[in-house]
Amino acid sequence: MTTQHESLDSVDSRESSKVAALDIGSNSFHLVVARIVAGSVQILHRVKQKVRLAEGLDSKNVLSDEAMERGLETLRIIAASLEGFEPDSVRIVATYTLRKAVNANRFISAALEIMPYPIEVISGPEEARLIYSGVAHTNHDNGQRLVVDIGGGSTEFIIGEGLTSKLCRSLQMGCVSFTQRFFANGELKAKAFERAITAAEQQMEPIEERYRRLAWQHCLGTSGTIKTLYNLVQKTDNESGMQVPVTLKALKQVMKQFIDAGHIDNLTHPAISEDRRKVIPAGLCVLIAIFKALKIEELEYSPAALREGVLYQMEDELHNNDIRGRTAASLAVRYDVDTTQANLVLGTTKRLFSAVQQPWKLNHSDYPAILGWAALLHEVGLQINTRGVQRHSAYILQNIDMPGFNQAQQELLATLVRFHRKKIRLPDVAAFTQYSNEEIGRLIAVLRVSVLLNIKRQESFLPEFSVDADKHSLTLTFPEDWLASKPIMAADLERESHYLKAVNVTLTVS
Amino acid sequence: MTTQHESLDSVDSRESSKVAALDIGSNSFHLVVARIVAGSVQILHRVKQKVRLAEGLDSKNVLSDEAMERGLETLRIIAASLEGFEPDSVRIVATYTLRKAVNANRFISAALEIMPYPIEVISGPEEARLIYSGVAHTNHDNGQRLVVDIGGGSTEFIIGEGLTSKLCRSLQMGCVSFTQRFFANGELKAKAFERAITAAEQQMEPIEERYRRLAWQHCLGTSGTIKTLYNLVQKTDNESGMQVPVTLKALKQVMKQFIDAGHIDNLTHPAISEDRRKVIPAGLCVLIAIFKALKIEELEYSPAALREGVLYQMEDELHNNDIRGRTAASLAVRYDVDTTQANLVLGTTKRLFSAVQQPWKLNHSDYPAILGWAALLHEVGLQINTRGVQRHSAYILQNIDMPGFNQAQQELLATLVRFHRKKIRLPDVAAFTQYSNEEIGRLIAVLRVSVLLNIKRQESFLPEFSVDADKHSLTLTFPEDWLASKPIMAADLERESHYLKAVNVTLTVS
Repeated sequence: MTTQHESLDSVDSRESSKVAALDIGSNSFHLVVARIVAGSVQILHRVKQKVRLAEGLDSKNVLSDEAMERGLETLRIIAASLEGFEPDSVRIVATYTLRKAVNANRFISAALEIMPYPIEVISGPEEARLIYSGVAHTNHDNGQRLVVDIGGGSTEFIIGEGLTSKLCRSLQMGCVSFTQRFFANGELKAKAFERAITAAEQQMEPIEERYRRLAWQHCLGTSGTIKTLYNLVQKTDNESGMQVPVTLKALKQVMKQFIDAGHIDNLTHPAISEDRRKVIPAGLCVLIAIFKALKIEELEYSPAALREGVLYQMEDELHNNDIRGRTAASLAVRYDVDTTQANLVLGTTKRLFSAVQQPWKLNHSDYPAILGWAALLHEVGLQINTRGVQRHSAYILQNIDMPGFNQAQQELLATLVRFHRKKIRLPDVAAFTQYSNEEIGRLIAVLRVSVLLNIKRQESFLPEFSVDADKHSLTLTFPEDWLASKPIMAADLERESHYLKAVNVTLTVS
Repeated sequence: MTTQHESLDSVDSRESSKVAALDIGSNSFHLVVARIVAGSVQILHRVKQKVRLAEGLDSKNVLSDEAMERGLETLRIIAASLEGFEPDSVRIVATYTLRKAVNANRFISAALEIMPYPIEVISGPEEARLIYSGVAHTNHDNGQRLVVDIGGGSTEFIIGEGLTSKLCRSLQMGCVSFTQRFFANGELKAKAFERAITAAEQQMEPIEERYRRLAWQHCLGTSGTIKTLYNLVQKTDNESGMQVPVTLKALKQVMKQFIDAGHIDNLTHPAISEDRRKVIPAGLCVLIAIFKALKIEELEYSPAALREGVLYQMEDELHNNDIRGRTAASLAVRYDVDTTQANLVLGTTKRLFSAVQQPWKLNHSDYPAILGWAALLHEVGLQINTRGVQRHSAYILQNIDMPGFNQAQQELLATLVRFHRKKIRLPDVAAFTQYSNEEIGRLIAVLRVSVLLNIKRQESFLPEFSVDADKHSLTLTFPEDWLASKPIMAADLERESHYLKAVNVTLTVS
């Protein structure tokens, strides 16, 4: 009986949790709803909506009102499918178009009024990493694999092995943007194909050598463009019923058929959906260029892509297996951080944060982790120069690839580090839709005081001390006479109390 | 006879060359004229002029008209001593005040009208390195030495061994700026000394641990403040006639005497010159703080300093022993540059530069070397990210310490690298007094075309080609059919010809 009961308990703890991932792409929005059961992801249903958001980007990267309205209208439809989901059970990621759009924040704010889940804009390499994760969790090849995803605005290239991606790049070429550049009038001339292929090959030039050098045993493509071309190749080449991989030769035959058709309107092949017709010639050119530049022999199609990668990341996080922690740790190693010192600062940061979190209302679930990584990484810039280390650390953290971080999280991390010492200039801080500037100022205060208290870089230097916090204040109480015996530290804290006025925090020490 | 004749020849080739170094300091200007004979530097004469330039810096780092006029007037006096010197035989370096002054270029331009030698503003670490070089060439201790130089606006700290400096830092504290902060009214109160010492100790805090850890066997101080304090200690402590080193105890006795004197006007000790009187109490505080922070036991005085370091650097360069080349090479190693690729680009750069130098009037003697280092270092930023490598490389080159480079040279190097690919935005380029923007644009063109021609990263890729240049044009002629067989390269060069319009260069390829 007992055993059975335990077994029941165990079934309970394996109770499925329902999660959803929405991918706000440059061509389509994709929603996937799934159950996570015992570490595996079971897809319940999918919704795809063509939006062609990238069409609304003008030459100054302003997203048009019309495109925004198309996107928001689609979100209203999708929101219905998400009713009743917990905030933690939904992740929305946005890619190329919102990365580029200078007015992306307007769209993101408007979307928050439609549904209570924040849109996370992710970087190209992060998109690539998640695509690979989606493919890797659903395809079990041995050896290294190359994954290619042609989107509306960007194309991702990943070489990985097993569940680990090794090389992640994203290039700014996609089926929507290339359609605008080379097939805007709908005509399908040989010259236009040639020019589009050359342009895509030029884009590949800076990365092709590294990919070819790292090499792969299997090549997989994902997303609508490649799916359509894969299907076209099946229909063209094959009467045996066996699926055949895509080859350069087969793609060139498709190109010839397109040129013979003469105009996009004549692409009536049943494998080409209505939605896809307009952008498939450009997508074909991008794929041909990729085949040529990387000397790909065969490419298979994988139905899993970005949204599945997001689901698996959620599943990982459910098990406290946060890739961002691994990212931060590996950066600390790569930039040769003095980890003893970083851990001293981290320890003090945790102490202070637990005292101020409630009175300072630092409730966002991102804060404790990002503050901790800021403590761990605030000295990465020493690699460039000790002078201005706060600027150099922030520059590095802003510009490197940070697997697992969305753009806002990466920017918040860089901002905290930027002001870990010297003058705080809050007006320099970018506007975030998800974090308030007041809260950022307070996180900065926690980091700064922690760094300062450990300025001697000696574990034994700091005595026991108590921490009190009020709405706008932080009070540190040291053992009697300790501060009197440390005039430099006392003067440092005095100076710091002036700096902290910029973030409306009153620092008192005694 | 033959032998004697040879010997005479040999004397001829050892003929002395007369050189001069002028140090535009924050407190005084120092001129040293010397002969370089067979690799050794013989000082012929010295001129010292008190200017107290740092007094003219306001809180926004604007240098006042009065201070500029004081400085220019002094340069007029000094110019008389420099008449008849070759341009290559005079080096003028400027330190803290012109580093800080936002309007420094006005002073530098005005100075160029007084004498035809450009003022080079050097960074703090470069100042430190040159000071060490001056001291090291004239003191022959065994083991590691610490050198401290208290100037008007900054204080330098160097640990080195033999002729090699290992740790170079410059802190923004000096006898002029500390006088303004703590002794502006001339009163010498115990409280003011205490506050000034604490402030200096705060400045030392971030660096003290690294210096103490690296350690030293001998400690030497240079420049007027330390010379005066050294002399005061002699007079105070010593009746035997033997020179004694400076100790913390002796400095505290001097402080007591100063406090007893009560006011700067009462500091009539013969070891304190009229010029020095006003700033020596602040200088004393800085030195006491340094003794405390670094736990210095004894400090000796060295008469050689920055200007001697500049002379020895000139002597080095005379023998083609340019430290900047070593700096560039060591950076390439530190940032793990693909040196095979860097050398391919360098080779092409040299080819192109020799063809364009005359028609494009690229006559400044800095250009060939800096262009070469740009070729060598344009990929240092890969360490941060492949995307935007041009920005990251420029950021690193702008912010690291580059021994041997003055600020303008370092900025030019970073600027070339900043635009080695993608869009050229010349308005973003800082205004240089010594290099014209038109010339910089042309150097950028040479670097860009060289990088582009080697984009395949393969030595065998480029065929023989000829280079022609006219006033505004660059023509590359490849073997017949080569370009036709390389459509991507042809398209790249076509795109590049559009980019180069921004620098008024017409690129033609065939």
